[in-house]
Amino acid sequence: MRIRVINPNTTASMTETIARAAREVAAAGTVIDAVTSPTGPVSIEGYYDEALSLPGLLIEIRRGEALGAAGHVIACFDDTGLDAARQIAAAPVVGIGEAACHAATLIAQRFTVVTTLSRSVSALEHNILKYGFERRAKVRAADVPVLALEDEASDARARIDAEIAKALIEDRAEAIVLGCAGMAKLARDLAARHGCPVIDGVGAAVKLVEMLASLGLQTSKRSGYERVAPKALTGPVSQLV
Amino acid sequence: MRIRVINPNTTASMTETIARAAREVAAAGTVIDAVTSPTGPVSIEGYYDEALSLPGLLIEIRRGEALGAAGHVIACFDDTGLDAARQIAAAPVVGIGEAACHAATLIAQRFTVVTTLSRSVSALEHNILKYGFERRAKVRAADVPVLALEDEASDARARIDAEIAKALIEDRAEAIVLGCAGMAKLARDLAARHGCPVIDGVGAAVKLVEMLASLGLQTSKRSGYERVAPKALTGPVSQLV
Amino acid sequence: MRIRVINPNTTASMTETIARAAREVAAAGTVIDAVTSPTGPVSIEGYYDEALSLPGLLIEIRRGEALGAAGHVIACFDDTGLDAARQIAAAPVVGIGEAACHAATLIAQRFTVVTTLSRSVSALEHNILKYGFERRAKVRAADVPVLALEDEASDARARIDAEIAKALIEDRAEAIVLGCAGMAKLARDLAARHGCPVIDGVGAAVKLVEMLASLGLQTSKRSGYERVAPKALTGPVSQLV
Amino acid sequence: MRIRVINPNTTASMTETIARAAREVAAAGTVIDAVTSPTGPVSIEGYYDEALSLPGLLIEIRRGEALGAAGHVIACFDDTGLDAARQIAAAPVVGIGEAACHAATLIAQRFTVVTTLSRSVSALEHNILKYGFERRAKVRAADVPVLALEDEASDARARIDAEIAKALIEDRAEAIVLGCAGMAKLARDLAARHGCPVIDGVGAAVKLVEMLASLGLQTSKRSGYERVAPKALTGPVSQLV
Amino acid sequence: MRIRVINPNTTASMTETIARAAREVAAAGTVIDAVTSPTGPVSIEGYYDEALSLPGLLIEIRRGEALGAAGHVIACFDDTGLDAARQIAAAPVVGIGEAACHAATLIAQRFTVVTTLSRSVSALEHNILKYGFERRAKVRAADVPVLALEDEASDARARIDAEIAKALIEDRAEAIVLGCAGMAKLARDLAARHGCPVIDGVGAAVKLVEMLASLGLQTSKRSGYERVAPKALTGPVSQLV
Amino acid sequence: MRIRVINPNTTASMTETIARAAREVAAAGTVIDAVTSPTGPVSIEGYYDEALSLPGLLIEIRRGEALGAAGHVIACFDDTGLDAARQIAAAPVVGIGEAACHAATLIAQRFTVVTTLSRSVSALEHNILKYGFERRAKVRAADVPVLALEDEASDARARIDAEIAKALIEDRAEAIVLGCAGMAKLARDLAARHGCPVIDGVGAAVKLVEMLASLGLQTSKRSGYERVAPKALTGPVSQLV
Repeated sequence: MRIRVINPNTTASMTETIARAAREVAAAGTVIDAVTSPTGPVSIEGYYDEALSLPGLLIEIRRGEALGAAGHVIACFDDTGLDAARQIAAAPVVGIGEAACHAATLIAQRFTVVTTLSRSVSALEHNILKYGFERRAKVRAADVPVLALEDEASDARARIDAEIAKALIEDRAEAIVLGCAGMAKLARDLAARHGCPVIDGVGAAVKLVEMLASLGLQTSKRSGYERVAPKALTGPVSQLV
Repeated sequence: MRIRVINPNTTASMTETIARAAREVAAAGTVIDAVTSPTGPVSIEGYYDEALSLPGLLIEIRRGEALGAAGHVIACFDDTGLDAARQIAAAPVVGIGEAACHAATLIAQRFTVVTTLSRSVSALEHNILKYGFERRAKVRAADVPVLALEDEASDARARIDAEIAKALIEDRAEAIVLGCAGMAKLARDLAARHGCPVIDGVGAAVKLVEMLASLGLQTSKRSGYERVAPKALTGPVSQLV
Repeated sequence: MRIRVINPNTTASMTETIARAAREVAAAGTVIDAVTSPTGPVSIEGYYDEALSLPGLLIEIRRGEALGAAGHVIACFDDTGLDAARQIAAAPVVGIGEAACHAATLIAQRFTVVTTLSRSVSALEHNILKYGFERRAKVRAADVPVLALEDEASDARARIDAEIAKALIEDRAEAIVLGCAGMAKLARDLAARHGCPVIDGVGAAVKLVEMLASLGLQTSKRSGYERVAPKALTGPVSQLV
Repeated sequence: MRIRVINPNTTASMTETIARAAREVAAAGTVIDAVTSPTGPVSIEGYYDEALSLPGLLIEIRRGEALGAAGHVIACFDDTGLDAARQIAAAPVVGIGEAACHAATLIAQRFTVVTTLSRSVSALEHNILKYGFERRAKVRAADVPVLALEDEASDARARIDAEIAKALIEDRAEAIVLGCAGMAKLARDLAARHGCPVIDGVGAAVKLVEMLASLGLQTSKRSGYERVAPKALTGPVSQLV
Repeated sequence: MRIRVINPNTTASMTETIARAAREVAAAGTVIDAVTSPTGPVSIEGYYDEALSLPGLLIEIRRGEALGAAGHVIACFDDTGLDAARQIAAAPVVGIGEAACHAATLIAQRFTVVTTLSRSVSALEHNILKYGFERRAKVRAADVPVLALEDEASDARARIDAEIAKALIEDRAEAIVLGCAGMAKLARDLAARHGCPVIDGVGAAVKLVEMLASLGLQTSKRSGYERVAPKALTGPVSQLV
Repeated sequence: MRIRVINPNTTASMTETIARAAREVAAAGTVIDAVTSPTGPVSIEGYYDEALSLPGLLIEIRRGEALGAAGHVIACFDDTGLDAARQIAAAPVVGIGEAACHAATLIAQRFTVVTTLSRSVSALEHNILKYGFERRAKVRAADVPVLALEDEASDARARIDAEIAKALIEDRAEAIVLGCAGMAKLARDLAARHGCPVIDGVGAAVKLVEMLASLGLQTSKRSGYERVAPKALTGPVSQLV
């Protein structure tokens, strides 16, 4: 089966990080098609960036559907555009934020998400409420810009490390979720250092798409995700999607 | 004070309906600048349309800020792009969906939102959860496409009427919220027919912006709505916003 | 339109503070009728004082209705007697506690109420739960008796100041709500000092009553607020109301 | 031990019903002092009546404290004035509404409260939320005025009967709570007819006060129920309490 | 009436502690039959111990039913096997964990449970959610193994003391619940030292069973606790129960 | 990798159904070891059966750990003994009830669980609350005993069919979860008949264990699932585990 892993920002080096994380866990018969959004911001940090990344993301969802993808992964921890993507997809769509949280609840009673900037915290808290995990999860920011994760010389890793240490004590976290696709490469090492599960959402999302595809489950077309006829679009957006 | 009322779909006749509802309740010194989104879908019915309306909406928020607007109203009941708009605005931004719900809670313990299509229900339920009104509100669809509201010959009104009647009995609703900007013109008449408060969000949102502006309150720039430096945009979206 | 602003305690100097805050934000055509409760405690600090202030408050609600008031503001942050007042009023009734909280949710995701004494905290938490804001709001006490707010020589202001500073860090508050009608005069100055929105409920409530009146919305008479026939009263209370 | 059972309305025949229910279950050493409120409405049906019954109730709480009561029962299903009473009492205070709900949760997973008039429903729902039972309880009205319960010729009993039948099916109720002190005498018979537990709050509250007194537990004087110094009262209320 | 108090662990000295606490508060006509589980772990600390204690507990519930007990107390703070016991009992069954929490909510708005080991915390939090007290209760561990409570030379008491002190400040607790049957003997003394109510669940549970029995209330046999016909058991478990 | 799929009841024919469902979806390198509990009830219908199935289940968890299983599936929809199993397992443990619910939330906003008997409903509702899905899920019983699912001649299938039809309309369900391991074989066919996703938990749980194992994630040993030293067991249970 072919799974489309879409990086909804336009930074190709981050797509590489994501693709590696995806391929590392994919099952024997799974092919990972990792793509970078064709248009939008270079990184997604907060509500405004999210909004501007949607047209690019939806273009790629449509392409994946046309190519017969078995499923789609939205590789931004904010699960940007998840509901809109589900509305136009027949195949399942999984966000890496929700995927990591689902995985965490299967191995721990409480967990903490360590994300990049504090301005992303409320969007993540809001998602966690929507998913139903608000009684079990906390969100913390390590004050690391997304693109610093791509820069070996930054102190990003040290800051994330420190925030995990605080989460284990102050939040009584039993597992840690890494709150940005760009952190995927750090999971294994951080787990060893802190002696607790550290979860990257990219791998989790790939496996959840495999689950849904293996079970023959597709996005429900009743109510919210009902498929709709194409609708007139006006102005420059009409040339995008 | 000048309040920008933005219709985030591209149907100008609906902007007229909205403008009338806004001006009817505006205070003596308030000027309503009603604008139609320059790009996007002709109506917003569900998650996908919402996503495609965001660039046009954000263009108008930026314009309003440049023009020194005292505040912005997002005149779509889904409160499309509300958080993204707040991130780029100094002036307050109010959605008509949240406005109507806030008003309802001041005059009734329980209320029901009657919206257009059933595929909008879960998005509205999700907003209501986010706002905190999930214990007091129900959402129903009258199975009326948004643009049928602009068509005098449609049976839209009869269907809305019937759904209100059900809500009063089955939901024990004490007030009704009209779940689409295009229904603004029906409020007064429906209230009379059903003997209960019927709330249109356009008027409520205008008055809430007046409230915030009178109190000297602007969108908080701490955490989620923090103002951010312009960021590199790639591809066609960069020409939009 | 005439809006009755009722101070449900019997301290006339506090009524003056409240009246000033109300008039400062009232629209051109709005007349503020500020009244002091004719009977009850000199300040309302906790459940017992609340209970004893109800007859005086309800006398004034009845008077306002007889005078044809466009709406009523209950100017005590505990929203004392709000439901009882709504039951006997046709015009809308808004409490300053709920008003400030509604305003806060329109400009911030999280906010903290800073009130006077710690024995008021649980009553306010209870109101916040009832209104639906329990996921977004915290309540703190500055350990300042209500009447100290009327005394220029007290350290009330310094204590409130210190508590706001803590709220911004420890609660990640994005806005501050002043939890007592007597604090109205401090809002503007505290906002400037702390660089975040600081909300006084008196002004917010006046504007919300204006909103409801402009929209032609009255308290719903279905279910909980149903109007009831006068009922036999026995003993001294019968001479009060 | 002496337990004060206070009927906060002024109808003495209802106090008799309540006293009988209390004495029937009191332990060997318990003396029931049943008192009728000296002032207020003849029955409590909704928020306004509740407010007017408070001075009379608090007078009786003070008297009971002076007489050294081991505890107080507030014998109105709305748990009128419960928090205010706790603030001025050292001995425990239990409302019959909360008592019945606590009892129900010990023998059933879900229960339904059958109360008198629909205008009491939202006040009871609000209490249930405050107590934490909102996921397990529903509230229904039998459309029976309180005083009809004192009138043998009324159809009160048939209406309550019919509402219980509906609750067992439509709400999947596993137990029924009688939502008015005046229904105490019906419990045993209704339980037999419907083959499920039917709970009267008067008896439950007496036993809960016995529990607290036996365990040496008194109302906590930390935070919300902190004891406060007498405060200046102005106007006619000052002659009441 | 005879009340069976079952210690579901197999440590007889703890049964003695429990029996003393039960008899101290039992009403004049109540006989306490305290029994130790015939099979299972010596103490119950976490989920696994809970699971292994169930057969022994259920044997004793059946015996009590055969002996005509008026009710059963499960004397482990985890309320081990409460639902299974209720399914096979006609008489009421009360756990000491739920009993203490119910008592706490009648005298305080917020309370903290101080239990033994941190690995019990999440099971208790889960019970508290199920009972509906999650908004009012916190759980803390004093890091004291259960059997250290039986050892006069341990520092158990000092650790519990210190944790209570923290709860009063950090959690704003208004009452303390002792989170282990073995702590029953400490309640009175700790209450005196900390000047706040300290609640032991054993006594509370005995009084709640008395309440239910006095009111003629038995476990509802509708839905979840429906009585079921004996079912074929295979293997060694069939010889147990 | 070897995954142990444990049927915690003692009916071998049901283990066969379960094994088939598991193998159908297992990845290329996954071996399914399906085992029947060595002791306990022939079917699990409600709390009491659950309790008696625990020793047999835990024996099998221990065996699987000794054999180096990559993970364990508990193949009873009640997720019997899930927390106890996690406490003694290093490898991940997934229940089929939670697995099906997690899958449902990835393809639908609302779903309904259709289980066997009404006496299982409250246990499932309780699990759903614990998992966080209470706002999105409803539970219905088809009134079919578990073992009727093994009997081709029963009307089990027709009853399940009818209940699904009701769920789609009355609950606005967008997906259906089959609430018993014995229903696994019906999923595909029911999905086709009703035109909506129908989810069997056995397959979902196998894929979730594969996910956790692929990601190198094991059950967290912090707090609730902390590994504990073997503890003295008394009486017949000591010979079981």
